[in-house]
Amino acid sequence: MPSPDESVHPTATGLAKQTVDKHQDEQDITLWSGWFCPFNQRIWMALEERKIPYKYKEVNPYKKEKHFLDLNPLGLVPTLEIKQGGGTDKSKALYESDVLVEYLEDLYPPSEEHPSIFPSDTYEKSWARLNVQHISKKIIPAYFKLQQFQDPSDQSKAREELYSGLRTLAQRVKGPYFAGEQWTAVDMSLAPFVRRFYNLVKYRGLDESAVGDGWQDYSKRLLDRESLKNTSSEDKYYTEILERYLKNEAQSEVAKATRGGQSLP
Amino acid sequence: MPSPDESVHPTATGLAKQTVDKHQDEQDITLWSGWFCPFNQRIWMALEERKIPYKYKEVNPYKKEKHFLDLNPLGLVPTLEIKQGGGTDKSKALYESDVLVEYLEDLYPPSEEHPSIFPSDTYEKSWARLNVQHISKKIIPAYFKLQQFQDPSDQSKAREELYSGLRTLAQRVKGPYFAGEQWTAVDMSLAPFVRRFYNLVKYRGLDESAVGDGWQDYSKRLLDRESLKNTSSEDKYYTEILERYLKNEAQSEVAKATRGGQSLP
Ligand SMILES: N[C@@H](CCC(=O)N[C@@H](CS)C(=O)NCC(=O)O)C(=O)O
Ligand SMILES: N[C@@H](CCC(=O)N[C@@H](CS)C(=O)NCC(=O)O)C(=O)O
Repeated sequence: MPSPDESVHPTATGLAKQTVDKHQDEQDITLWSGWFCPFNQRIWMALEERKIPYKYKEVNPYKKEKHFLDLNPLGLVPTLEIKQGGGTDKSKALYESDVLVEYLEDLYPPSEEHPSIFPSDTYEKSWARLNVQHISKKIIPAYFKLQQFQDPSDQSKAREELYSGLRTLAQRVKGPYFAGEQWTAVDMSLAPFVRRFYNLVKYRGLDESAVGDGWQDYSKRLLDRESLKNTSSEDKYYTEILERYLKNEAQSEVAKATRGGQSLP
Repeated sequence: MPSPDESVHPTATGLAKQTVDKHQDEQDITLWSGWFCPFNQRIWMALEERKIPYKYKEVNPYKKEKHFLDLNPLGLVPTLEIKQGGGTDKSKALYESDVLVEYLEDLYPPSEEHPSIFPSDTYEKSWARLNVQHISKKIIPAYFKLQQFQDPSDQSKAREELYSGLRTLAQRVKGPYFAGEQWTAVDMSLAPFVRRFYNLVKYRGLDESAVGDGWQDYSKRLLDRESLKNTSSEDKYYTEILERYLKNEAQSEVAKATRGGQSLP
């Protein structure tokens, strides 16, 4: 029986679609992408922000087709396929959005042409990584719980957890972005989720003003970033997917982990 | 009421104690350490492996004393305190074992004197990071569940989860270590937990032969590593702590997260 998640709209729409169309030529890097996926959008943004040549390829990760599992045994987007030099046909793959950000940094060392997504100062770079982890450990799990939990008191706990995670981060924002003028991996790890908050506002009583000091200014700046807009599809297509989470019907790995109290994939 | 975890033995013992004694001089880096903590042992090993000067300072993270919370608001070991140059007294801190490994790599760029803990090849480096994540997401949570769960069928599920996580890793080991001849962050992230397996063998039916192909050879090599031995205390002191987990009495952040089906801190 096919998973109901397989029925996601097959392609990006809106501005994201225009970006897809611009990235159809062969390149050394292929982004195996799900237009709808917030983790995926991180890497898509990183490629755009850092002006790294890539080919965009849409894949439905819920279908778990063999050619995709051969690249990533976890069957998750984002996955990068990387052509090997030396005239062979062989290619290698990597996955895990936060590993990929680091990989791109190593592959295209920061330069004027390819601006870094990390602060150059050693301490600040690690501080950024630490806050990317804060997002992964405290903010994202709360986001998915709030989306998926059905019981109002569970929702209310998840909402508080989300506020608390966002508040900690907001207090560390130097402004305009997390690390100051520079757009970094911290902003990029969070922005795709903030982009999807509108559904939680509508259906889960999310009230961003409850986060407090500085959050709303910061969140507006995230939403204003070109690379976020250019990799975003039309709202109604996100909503279509989110509805399955809101009803706790989604069967994705993330949904199952959230339901079962497991760490996210 | 003080948390019962506060009563951990106050100092390292055995070979670890000798290593502590060698690292009492002031240095730019101070490791705020808990001798008993497997996450902490990672960074302790990294400092030893990479021959980085450091001062060792024992702290009981369960006491959550103000001076320690000022360094790390999460109140967790390992925490690194870093002296700032310029004649000021001020210092900064960083935490999260996997962030710290990267920090040390940036602070002491790989050289003959300070051998890297990552493969030099860009792709292999990311592959190592990906497998560090595999350890964090699949192996460590299963390890803590197996330790803490009381119901035999829950234990059996956790055991299978642990075998499966270890099996995936074992299949990727190039030998003798994960990435070949070089000792890397993958080996180092796992070794402190393997060091503590003996209790799970004794009390939780852990049978390493069930992992299969190559695991036991690899695990022996991990246990044989000098830096692991030199940062390890005597078995009976580990057992004392693990007993509180085995009875599900521990009140640490890790224990509470495992009990509550949350992601680990
Ligand atoms: N930890 C991964 C998570 C990626 C992920 O969960 N991707 C989802 C889509 S948002 C996916 O591919 N799901 C396929 C499935 O659940 O079967 C990352 O950061 O890249
Ligand atoms: N994610 C952290 C975990 C560190 C951690 O959990 N440390 C424990 C000791 S093993 C601790 O300090 N616990 C204090 C507490 O639970 O209150 C890391 O990798 O450094």
